[in-house]
Amino acid sequence: MSKALERRAKLRELLIAAAERAILAKGLGGLKTRELAREIGCANGAVYNLVDDMDELILRVGSRTLARLDAAVSLAESSGDASAGEMLVRIALAYCDFAAENLELWRALFEHRMAQGKAVPEWAVGEQMDLFRHIHRPLAALFPGKSAAELSVTARTLFSAVHGVVALGLEQKLIAVPIDALREEIATIVRAMVAGLTAESAQSAAMT
Amino acid sequence: MSKALERRAKLRELLIAAAERAILAKGLGGLKTRELAREIGCANGAVYNLVDDMDELILRVGSRTLARLDAAVSLAESSGDASAGEMLVRIALAYCDFAAENLELWRALFEHRMAQGKAVPEWAVGEQMDLFRHIHRPLAALFPGKSAAELSVTARTLFSAVHGVVALGLEQKLIAVPIDALREEIATIVRAMVAGLTAESAQSAAMT
Repeated sequence: MSKALERRAKLRELLIAAAERAILAKGLGGLKTRELAREIGCANGAVYNLVDDMDELILRVGSRTLARLDAAVSLAESSGDASAGEMLVRIALAYCDFAAENLELWRALFEHRMAQGKAVPEWAVGEQMDLFRHIHRPLAALFPGKSAAELSVTARTLFSAVHGVVALGLEQKLIAVPIDALREEIATIVRAMVAGLTAESAQSAAMT
Repeated sequence: MSKALERRAKLRELLIAAAERAILAKGLGGLKTRELAREIGCANGAVYNLVDDMDELILRVGSRTLARLDAAVSLAESSGDASAGEMLVRIALAYCDFAAENLELWRALFEHRMAQGKAVPEWAVGEQMDLFRHIHRPLAALFPGKSAAELSVTARTLFSAVHGVVALGLEQKLIAVPIDALREEIATIVRAMVAGLTAESAQSAAMT
């Protein structure tokens, strides 16, 4: 790598780290090109030599958030009772804890919308989808008769349901819940969903 | 009512209706005092003789959205199979349909945050909480042994889970789902949750 490319790569890392700190402190709304440029010591315009636009910068921060979430969920997956149902409970609780501990960065993942008419780039979609493997695996063990496509739908629904409980539970506005009560609700509802889906799956297997 | 008061009440209605149209067209971000004032034919500053601030204006629009949601859910509740479980499925589907058909107004209910340090006024909290009665009622029929406080937790969790599935399903970014597939997912997951919670409740009753 040439000196100039090296310098650029390093500045880019500094920019992403500065954007991460800004989101942590003030949320997505707190992201200002001018302040980021000042923080890493470059001209305002030079920021857009480092990333294409604000969307890319936010997605790069999201990429770091997702990598840390992935590590937290992997840890939860492998520690404790190996039953697939309880593994799903642990994954959901790890998701809840991660959201509570990284509130602004986690919110930014969902609040960010691309500029009008622009699609999320494939690398970013891929990173998001990749995380579903954690849910897919125990579901495949629970429902060996389901196709990969059916498992994907169930994984998405299960994730969305848990996400909803976490999101509204952590939102201070509508229905703020103490974290211990929230964790209990999540464990209850994940166990209920798994039990209900298992009963339904057994029923439809008996009918065929 | 004096002529002046009447005029103020009428202008206030016009203002709320104009704000509703602006949110419908452009989302919460499209709400500009200057444009609203022009639309209803008053000076910029006069807007704040009609409502306390932007927060109140957004909450008044939300109040209208909640009233229409309430009507839609009431209709779903009373039409069809009277079993409590299927009633919950219909309520969840009515919620999904309402969100899909009123996307920006429904989003505004959840995206709006009060200005720093300000609490949501009691009348608005009351309106939001009041809607939970639709879920509370069938849950009370399903789980006669649960206390009102326990039923409230279950109602909140169930709502949050369905909300999550609807929100991420309608969000074009992460995991866009055709509406029919989304309705099917919702029916499946609500039935699973109800079945799972019923089994758990029977189990803990048998243990006492």
